[in-house]
Amino acid sequence: VSTLNRPSARTHLKGPVLQFRLRVIHKSEIALGPGKVELLTAIQTHGSISKGAKSVGMSYMRAWTLVKIMNGAFRGPLVIVERGGTQGGSARLTPLGHHVLELYFELIKQSQSASKTVWSKLRKVLKK
Amino acid sequence: VSTLNRPSARTHLKGPVLQFRLRVIHKSEIALGPGKVELLTAIQTHGSISKGAKSVGMSYMRAWTLVKIMNGAFRGPLVIVERGGTQGGSARLTPLGHHVLELYFELIKQSQSASKTVWSKLRKVLKK
Repeated sequence: VSTLNRPSARTHLKGPVLQFRLRVIHKSEIALGPGKVELLTAIQTHGSISKGAKSVGMSYMRAWTLVKIMNGAFRGPLVIVERGGTQGGSARLTPLGHHVLELYFELIKQSQSASKTVWSKLRKVLKK
Repeated sequence: VSTLNRPSARTHLKGPVLQFRLRVIHKSEIALGPGKVELLTAIQTHGSISKGAKSVGMSYMRAWTLVKIMNGAFRGPLVIVERGGTQGGSARLTPLGHHVLELYFELIKQSQSASKTVWSKLRKVLKK
């Protein structure tokens, strides 16, 4: 399970952590956010919506809803499903899906980098 | 109600919006995040935890829990309550509370600024 969405025992050991949970709001919907990005990454890893959903503790129904929202919000689908076979359908990210993931992580990287000085000030006023 | 936490009809009219929902994780707790920052701002405006909570649609119990977590996570309290009076107690932000709010908004500002180029790329692949 990714560290994108929840505090973990590990973050405790590392000291304070600043999380960048970016959200893209488009036509009154969340087109992209930490949950959807976590799901996309899991689908990429597992090659299936059901396995991807399971790996991040999400129901299959919920995963399908998120995929539908994303596929409808961008100029083309981010995830393509290939049905059939005795193992159930497989799923994969489209080139646009890969591109969107890359841009999202780039946004986080650049935000983290720009925040270093102010974050060090905020860390200092946290309890030891 | 602030735009920090939810998509609104207004963001629809303006086109896609990139929200920076920053979280400070400290000792396995969320020391600061969009909900707590919204509450702090409301307490600052209304001079009371109950009125502040009401203005952001939060229960008094929930607001108290968030204030306790914040006051316990930083080197000193962010909110001070002055009890008594027939109108119920009033509350205000400490100088540390003001400082923390300023740093949080500064983090968002700098992140937004650093993200401009990549965000314009991401906007372009959203459906018109």
